Amino acid sequence: METVDSRQRMIEATIDLMRGSGLGGAGINEIVRASGAPKGSVYHFFPGGKQQLAAEALESYSPRVMAFIDAALAKGDSAASRVGALFNAFARRVEEGSFRKSCALGAVCLDLDEDLEALRVVTATAFGEWVSLIASHFPGDARASRSFAGLLLTAIEGAYIRARAEQSSRAFREAGTWLGELAALRFGARTARRRVG
Amino acid sequence: METVDSRQRMIEATIDLMRGSGLGGAGINEIVRASGAPKGSVYHFFPGGKQQLAAEALESYSPRVMAFIDAALAKGDSAASRVGALFNAFARRVEEGSFRKSCALGAVCLDLDEDLEALRVVTATAFGEWVSLIASHFPGDARASRSFAGLLLTAIEGAYIRARAEQSSRAFREAGTWLGELAALRFGARTARRRVG
Repeated sequence: METVDSRQRMIEATIDLMRGSGLGGAGINEIVRASGAPKGSVYHFFPGGKQQLAAEALESYSPRVMAFIDAALAKGDSAASRVGALFNAFARRVEEGSFRKSCALGAVCLDLDEDLEALRVVTATAFGEWVSLIASHFPGDARASRSFAGLLLTAIEGAYIRARAEQSSRAFREAGTWLGELAALRFGARTARRRVG
Repeated sequence: METVDSRQRMIEATIDLMRGSGLGGAGINEIVRASGAPKGSVYHFFPGGKQQLAAEALESYSPRVMAFIDAALAKGDSAASRVGALFNAFARRVEEGSFRKSCALGAVCLDLDEDLEALRVVTATAFGEWVSLIASHFPGDARASRSFAGLLLTAIEGAYIRARAEQSSRAFREAGTWLGELAALRFGARTARRRVG
């Protein structure tokens, strides 16, 4: 079982390093150091090297965030409160990481170049799945649901950037308030009338 | 004048590399290669090394983006059209960079750690200035203007992440449509009634 553990430890170390500073921070040396795995074993477990390891790390990471998003959205009993619960959950998440950890996918995206096309496809696929998941919590016209879910994803990724700069979760809470209002208007008529009319 | 040119070329190379892959991509070797400046001159011009060079690059970059934002927002004649013009301008910008270049500030933020506190302050200061600038285009209750401007900044930074992953400007156009609607409601009553009522 030791080999399985080493492999998994390398994946976990990669996720953690990518959440801290993207691909630039997840060098083989850093992964070896953080995982405690012997350096030679990286290419044993991941013959494709860093790009394979990064891809597998993102593929392990993505479903965890989806579970987190799903649980947060399930807490709301209206469109507005679902949005609020989602952004509050991310605000707590970034606070718990002392504003030093963000989304592994987002951090990797801003490091992509043409040599990393396989990795880019992993990020695009994951984001597509996140959008579908979020959209399922905002039933209505399918195009509007999906486009609104895309906006929520955009705001989550952008709020992480500001949170890292500002050492604050304000960007998440601000987005939750504004986009909750928008959700009420478009996906919950009663709440909309109460808030805006 | 050659020394001034070398210094400026290093700054420009650093901005360009950071737009491509953040701090991780803007190593001294890469900056030397891209700028054509002799390696020894980096520490001559920037005794504080990479962090000083990165800070000065961001300080040169920020006012340019502010001018870009200001020009885009000035095109709109209503709150909604200002938002639309802003996101359309960024959509074109990311298209022109073939979805390989994003915001130097955003990319650096996702690489920050505790050793880069001086650089973090540069990013937070710049974002604060961007928010003030954007807010000035949405007059009204000062707190609401500033918080809405913060939301727009959040969406711009997040849309860059998705654009890099999806090789598409859709995230910008999607955000422009939704947030334009929100702007109409909150900062332009007449347009709001026409769009939503």
